[in-house]
Amino acid sequence: MKLYGYFRSSAAFRVRIALNLKKRDYETASIHLRRNDQSRPEYRNVNPQGLVPTLEDVGQTLIQSLAIIEYLDEIYPDPPLLPKDPAGRARVRALADIVACDIHPINNLRVLRYLMHELGHDEAAVAAWYNHWIAAGFDALEPLLANDAPTGAFCHGDMPGLADVTLVPQVVNAERYHLDLAPYPTLTRIYENCMKLEPFITAHPNNQPDYEG
Amino acid sequence: MKLYGYFRSSAAFRVRIALNLKKRDYETASIHLRRNDQSRPEYRNVNPQGLVPTLEDVGQTLIQSLAIIEYLDEIYPDPPLLPKDPAGRARVRALADIVACDIHPINNLRVLRYLMHELGHDEAAVAAWYNHWIAAGFDALEPLLANDAPTGAFCHGDMPGLADVTLVPQVVNAERYHLDLAPYPTLTRIYENCMKLEPFITAHPNNQPDYEG
Repeated sequence: MKLYGYFRSSAAFRVRIALNLKKRDYETASIHLRRNDQSRPEYRNVNPQGLVPTLEDVGQTLIQSLAIIEYLDEIYPDPPLLPKDPAGRARVRALADIVACDIHPINNLRVLRYLMHELGHDEAAVAAWYNHWIAAGFDALEPLLANDAPTGAFCHGDMPGLADVTLVPQVVNAERYHLDLAPYPTLTRIYENCMKLEPFITAHPNNQPDYEG
Repeated sequence: MKLYGYFRSSAAFRVRIALNLKKRDYETASIHLRRNDQSRPEYRNVNPQGLVPTLEDVGQTLIQSLAIIEYLDEIYPDPPLLPKDPAGRARVRALADIVACDIHPINNLRVLRYLMHELGHDEAAVAAWYNHWIAAGFDALEPLLANDAPTGAFCHGDMPGLADVTLVPQVVNAERYHLDLAPYPTLTRIYENCMKLEPFITAHPNNQPDYEG
């Protein structure tokens, strides 16, 4: 398998974690987002959306991180990233979607660039925007994690799964933008549990071949 | 089942289509987003994220439209909203996520309000924002639909599924904001095929009890 990604992309980070949890070897192709590699025709031929990640697997070109992770979970079921019961699966997918739909896309590089270039906002306004949407999502995630019985060492029980795979990159982004995590003790506890595990550590942006400090 | 929604919410629109395709009766609770019903404590107790939709089903409170639709597809498998093969499922989920992650959340009411109130932009700037992100997503969807063999009368084959369920509300939004759909003939053809079907017609915002012209 070949993963087109970027060290800083949290969507690519999710897929790296999933591949590591599934113990799958993969080759890396770095798409340098700051230098707009994603807009080059060579990459647009691979992924017409011009976003990362893309995963190539024997004859398949897969896009969209959550769709890729569900695919990996279907063809490599062990260890599972979703519980077996439909209600549990709905809970885990909802926790993942709070990050993957309602935080991350609003803070994506292309959106921040639109705020700066098309709308003329400065770095401080962009940073306020960034943290506003993370806080809005975390404000929902914290009670959902703190008050629901299925929460364990991880978002759903005592094995890491899809919700942890999306949560961890988002917490890494929050730390980078110095969001105060004190209001989110459950979320922080789960994040810390994840970051003790090799599949999460190895997938971290700082540990990628294309990392730039 | 009870669906907390709003006639104009495209995430609620998706769930209405899915419930109709699955031939499930449901009760409606209207959460008036323009009047901020979603921020009232009564609703926050149901859905801590303060977004619609929420679906209540025997002892379950389900949030996040895609997670709800996958749940419905798992407990009411007929007719299926996803194909059986993992690669096909990944394709359909990716098409759905292009809308549900990379268009819709960036154009959500709360984001448009932030642009207006916190950042001081006028209606024209907000409309340009809105259409920019729809066009960015449709520019990717059109070639993915036009060039991929599995596309049929609908996004994937000749039965409507998850990708159609997310596409249709987004096209309705695009029409409302007068986005030129001429560059998207395949997407428009599929949209028109969907809108001939009762489950899509019945779910349309204009046909909801809380519709306001």
